[in-house]
Amino acid sequence: MTWNTNLRWRLPLVCLLLELAMVVLFGVFVRYDFEADPHWSEEKQHKNIASDLENDFYYRYPSFQDVHVMIFVGFGFLMTFLQRYGFSAVGFNFLLAAFGIQWALLMQGWLHNFQNGYIYLGLESLINADFCVGSVCVAFGAVLGKVSPIQLLIMTLFQVTLFAVNEFILLNVLLVKDAGGSMTIHVFGAYFGLTVTRILYRPNLQQNEERQSSVYHSDLFAMIGTLFLWMYWPSFNSAVSNHGDAQHRAVINTYCSLAACVLTTVALSSALQKKGKLDMEHIQNATLAGGVAVGTAAEMMLMPYGSLVVGFVSGIVSTLGFVYLTPFMETHMHIQDTCGIHSLHGMPGLIGGIVGAVTAATATSEVYGRKGLAQAFGFDGANKNRTTHLQGSYQAAGIFVSIAIALVGGSVVGAILKLPIWGQPADENCFEDHVYWELPEERENTYRPEDSALKPVTP
Amino acid sequence: MTWNTNLRWRLPLVCLLLELAMVVLFGVFVRYDFEADPHWSEEKQHKNIASDLENDFYYRYPSFQDVHVMIFVGFGFLMTFLQRYGFSAVGFNFLLAAFGIQWALLMQGWLHNFQNGYIYLGLESLINADFCVGSVCVAFGAVLGKVSPIQLLIMTLFQVTLFAVNEFILLNVLLVKDAGGSMTIHVFGAYFGLTVTRILYRPNLQQNEERQSSVYHSDLFAMIGTLFLWMYWPSFNSAVSNHGDAQHRAVINTYCSLAACVLTTVALSSALQKKGKLDMEHIQNATLAGGVAVGTAAEMMLMPYGSLVVGFVSGIVSTLGFVYLTPFMETHMHIQDTCGIHSLHGMPGLIGGIVGAVTAATATSEVYGRKGLAQAFGFDGANKNRTTHLQGSYQAAGIFVSIAIALVGGSVVGAILKLPIWGQPADENCFEDHVYWELPEERENTYRPEDSALKPVTP
Amino acid sequence: MTWNTNLRWRLPLVCLLLELAMVVLFGVFVRYDFEADPHWSEEKQHKNIASDLENDFYYRYPSFQDVHVMIFVGFGFLMTFLQRYGFSAVGFNFLLAAFGIQWALLMQGWLHNFQNGYIYLGLESLINADFCVGSVCVAFGAVLGKVSPIQLLIMTLFQVTLFAVNEFILLNVLLVKDAGGSMTIHVFGAYFGLTVTRILYRPNLQQNEERQSSVYHSDLFAMIGTLFLWMYWPSFNSAVSNHGDAQHRAVINTYCSLAACVLTTVALSSALQKKGKLDMEHIQNATLAGGVAVGTAAEMMLMPYGSLVVGFVSGIVSTLGFVYLTPFMETHMHIQDTCGIHSLHGMPGLIGGIVGAVTAATATSEVYGRKGLAQAFGFDGANKNRTTHLQGSYQAAGIFVSIAIALVGGSVVGAILKLPIWGQPADENCFEDHVYWELPEERENTYRPEDSALKPVTP
Repeated sequence: MTWNTNLRWRLPLVCLLLELAMVVLFGVFVRYDFEADPHWSEEKQHKNIASDLENDFYYRYPSFQDVHVMIFVGFGFLMTFLQRYGFSAVGFNFLLAAFGIQWALLMQGWLHNFQNGYIYLGLESLINADFCVGSVCVAFGAVLGKVSPIQLLIMTLFQVTLFAVNEFILLNVLLVKDAGGSMTIHVFGAYFGLTVTRILYRPNLQQNEERQSSVYHSDLFAMIGTLFLWMYWPSFNSAVSNHGDAQHRAVINTYCSLAACVLTTVALSSALQKKGKLDMEHIQNATLAGGVAVGTAAEMMLMPYGSLVVGFVSGIVSTLGFVYLTPFMETHMHIQDTCGIHSLHGMPGLIGGIVGAVTAATATSEVYGRKGLAQAFGFDGANKNRTTHLQGSYQAAGIFVSIAIALVGGSVVGAILKLPIWGQPADENCFEDHVYWELPEERENTYRPEDSALKPVTP
Repeated sequence: MTWNTNLRWRLPLVCLLLELAMVVLFGVFVRYDFEADPHWSEEKQHKNIASDLENDFYYRYPSFQDVHVMIFVGFGFLMTFLQRYGFSAVGFNFLLAAFGIQWALLMQGWLHNFQNGYIYLGLESLINADFCVGSVCVAFGAVLGKVSPIQLLIMTLFQVTLFAVNEFILLNVLLVKDAGGSMTIHVFGAYFGLTVTRILYRPNLQQNEERQSSVYHSDLFAMIGTLFLWMYWPSFNSAVSNHGDAQHRAVINTYCSLAACVLTTVALSSALQKKGKLDMEHIQNATLAGGVAVGTAAEMMLMPYGSLVVGFVSGIVSTLGFVYLTPFMETHMHIQDTCGIHSLHGMPGLIGGIVGAVTAATATSEVYGRKGLAQAFGFDGANKNRTTHLQGSYQAAGIFVSIAIALVGGSVVGAILKLPIWGQPADENCFEDHVYWELPEERENTYRPEDSALKPVTP
Repeated sequence: MTWNTNLRWRLPLVCLLLELAMVVLFGVFVRYDFEADPHWSEEKQHKNIASDLENDFYYRYPSFQDVHVMIFVGFGFLMTFLQRYGFSAVGFNFLLAAFGIQWALLMQGWLHNFQNGYIYLGLESLINADFCVGSVCVAFGAVLGKVSPIQLLIMTLFQVTLFAVNEFILLNVLLVKDAGGSMTIHVFGAYFGLTVTRILYRPNLQQNEERQSSVYHSDLFAMIGTLFLWMYWPSFNSAVSNHGDAQHRAVINTYCSLAACVLTTVALSSALQKKGKLDMEHIQNATLAGGVAVGTAAEMMLMPYGSLVVGFVSGIVSTLGFVYLTPFMETHMHIQDTCGIHSLHGMPGLIGGIVGAVTAATATSEVYGRKGLAQAFGFDGANKNRTTHLQGSYQAAGIFVSIAIALVGGSVVGAILKLPIWGQPADENCFEDHVYWELPEERENTYRPEDSALKPVTP
């Protein structure tokens, strides 16, 4: 089956309409938070704030920029491993994330920061918008190479909406803790993306096997993505934590978990190959599972060795997933998961949710201090009498809610994306930049200085 | 025409002399700012400063490092899109920026921080030096591929000097606000560079058309530059803003403008191609126009939707510029603008200047608060009675001053660079690393494992 | 001689055992520092700390992330210059650093932060662990291409141990100042690595000359490493400095030294080639010597012009080293130094140690202020009566101690690594990813759109 892949009018129209909608909605609803408003200096006097540094900006700005790098360079380059799909990987990720953060500012604003008819924007909103888009980047990994940019924009529109709803249920109704978004970002993003790719199943992709693999340099580009994700993950998991010890602790836990994860990934990658050689795909992906799996519990008293254990286990689970489960799902369940997001985000996200539930359920006021416990889990106001056991149960419930919304939402969105009007590529053009990009006319890549008309003049 | 391109004695001599001059001038003039001086602890007691955190270092360090990355990786890699000019793009950018920041510390120091015969160096000086060099990197984009490193060093020497003078006129005489440097950096840099490249016009460059284009991997390298510029632009526009709300607001505005710009760039890029395909050149460049165009007004009350509008418009203008204006200027005005800086920095910079003037002129004390208004525009001291309308006019004047100094300065510097003694490349060697670099002897790029003398031993 | 390079059981076993050991040791010994503990809010009240910002986290987090990038992307990509060794360069660096930071947290914890039977982990511990691993990355540069990942893990195990001992002697016994680790990281790492590679000498490597060189794109990948090292070096040298002016000053000094170093590197690189062309190897490496050489004195009153002089000299020394000394050492001393670490870390590190000793010896209380002098050199408690002259002598002693431990330790570790059981590659397979990695089957790298089965449908 072939579709019309000339997007000349459709893509511009979709982009311009979406952006116009953003302008109008921002005009109606979005204002600056008081910490970004020129009245801040009066506010400061009024509230007796001693220093400009108490502006939340200075608590969160370094983490924000790191998260920003993860979304645009991290996810973007991680997906450049395909030999002929680098432009699309980086470029479409750029496009969907740029749209997604705007829509996320609105959706999250309406659900979390809506007062007097206005959404008040501060740095924390920007971080949360980046987080939300992170879950779309995860889902993009499942459908990579098989969808048009229009489909991606539509998927983003719906997924951001559902993300915000799911996040609202978890954080504001169930009062769940999820610092690094193991549930809200990774579990939700992964199962949403897997459902969509299941519905968009293409039976005849085997012919493209060559293009579904990497070449030497594309794997190095992908390592840029991997490393920036890996290095900045401590910022990701701590970016919206409580000021002070919680942010500090989230960084330490994530740092430890990620370090452990690298060693078990290398171990499994070598052990599962007959010749004991390492597989770049595992190094690029499974090394990150430790960051996913420590997300929910990052700011809890997981203890440094606990973080190592989480990283240890998730590196193993993730690598096993890449070797056995991803191909199994493709063959037997018709789930074509281009980047293996089930192994990188799905299973480690589940681990993260479970670890978070257990850590919460076993929290004691000896370990946290009475005040510390209340702060860590938000046991105040209406939530004052919640026990840690109950908190653990709610945490566990959060996992199921995330999966449920992802499956239902993914099914609906997948069905919408299946309509033959979005310019999706034909099977034989999947994983191929050429469909949507003007490519440089490729002469021989080999550079031969002696060929070029150099006429050096010696003195 | 061919020149002697063997730089063996000229380049070392120029580098060493310039660096020696720096050493001497630093020795005579440069000292540490009090916040970087060991007497700080006494100063702290003296001034009753409560915490080390009040050291300006902690307000600005994260932004500083981001700006640093933009100058060296951002601009450097953005220009690696040419297939045979990657070494020069990254390497010469590195060289000119490393020299430029030193000279900028002196020039800006003499004009802005000169007290008791000394220049006092603090972190803000380093940021400003990076900014100044940013405008040289912009101009480098126009002459990319057609000049020798000696010419670049000389251009840097003069351009930094003129930048500092122009900046002094704008910021200290006209008392203009220009947080992100739409006028001082982008308009000045772009029109300076365009004037220089006009004067260095080479009628016979068509023969190099092949080398003026990209190859697949060079475009991916360039995307590294694009993304780091795009992601860190909020830091750029807020790096020297007032502490507190102004810095916070500048980040939000820039974030919004850049996001909007991506969507309209994609829309136009697709709409302007017969087959509706995207052009990497636009994605690499026009997506950044939103950052340029929001520069001047970044810390003003532009409002989030206002930022979206600025990004919306500048993405369109910039992409149109790349498609129509850049080739027109080459053919009809003999302006060979290698990287299209007129479309990326020139026009968006003008938009930025105008937006800043309008936003300033329409500022009211209702929106800013009385105190906020005075702080935002520096209405104090001798400048106490300036109205916002007048401020708007001065802002507008700043645009014209920047263009004027750029055109006059660029003409003089262009004439100097035209002298046939700087080792410039012959027409047929333009866009060619081989002239100035020892290149690795290129065997076939293709890696064939089966060829290599591998003797694996199986156990 | 050929060894069995199938690591299928050995590598997994080593990784898993090491990681299990980490889990157990962390479980027994490692706890959170009070600033990362939920009791922090009580501690704050108790100690009358006004703001969460006084948590050391906010003083050091931006620098930490920059240092993290230097270790993983900086060192990792710097070594990708070899044409067929990119996977190993980035991947093995990732592996050894991920293990090394965990082991360093323990070793440095036992020696520096051991209280009541526990190691207390805070952000500064993470930075110091990264530093320690930095010295292993340095040593990796000497043996690059000639060792197996198992050998690297074993080298890391021993080198981190010795690093911690040497650091303890310098910082806690000799009470030496070494902000940026010129001695503890660079001198120690370089001479350790050189000793190891001397002992692992392979007489028959000339046949691999081709693979020991770069290709066009591998040199661009390496520049990613270079630039991130160069840009973030100010963070490196200031990351654990005293709060306030010391951290501020360390940044300024490093910034200046690095800028100067670029110019003299370019000058020498061009002057030493007959055709005056630049050599990428020098630009990639010698431009960083200024950061190494200003390490020890970075937080001292070196003065901005002093920093320029340090950068000036070290750029020259380093480039001369690459041109003359590295080949000389290979031919006449049988030291095969793949990345030229002697020229980048060894000699500049020595310069750094000497500059530090001289700057300390000549420090006066006029320049530093009485209080400032005591703070800068830690002249308090038992160390109250130490003179600056004496401090200078101790600084000098630190250089010799570092070299001595490096040489002795390197000899022992080299001997261990020579055992024929670690899966090292045969001579003819050195500098070759294929030995330890599943490589993508390389079809022709050239991408020919016309070949691909594109069936575009025009509307």
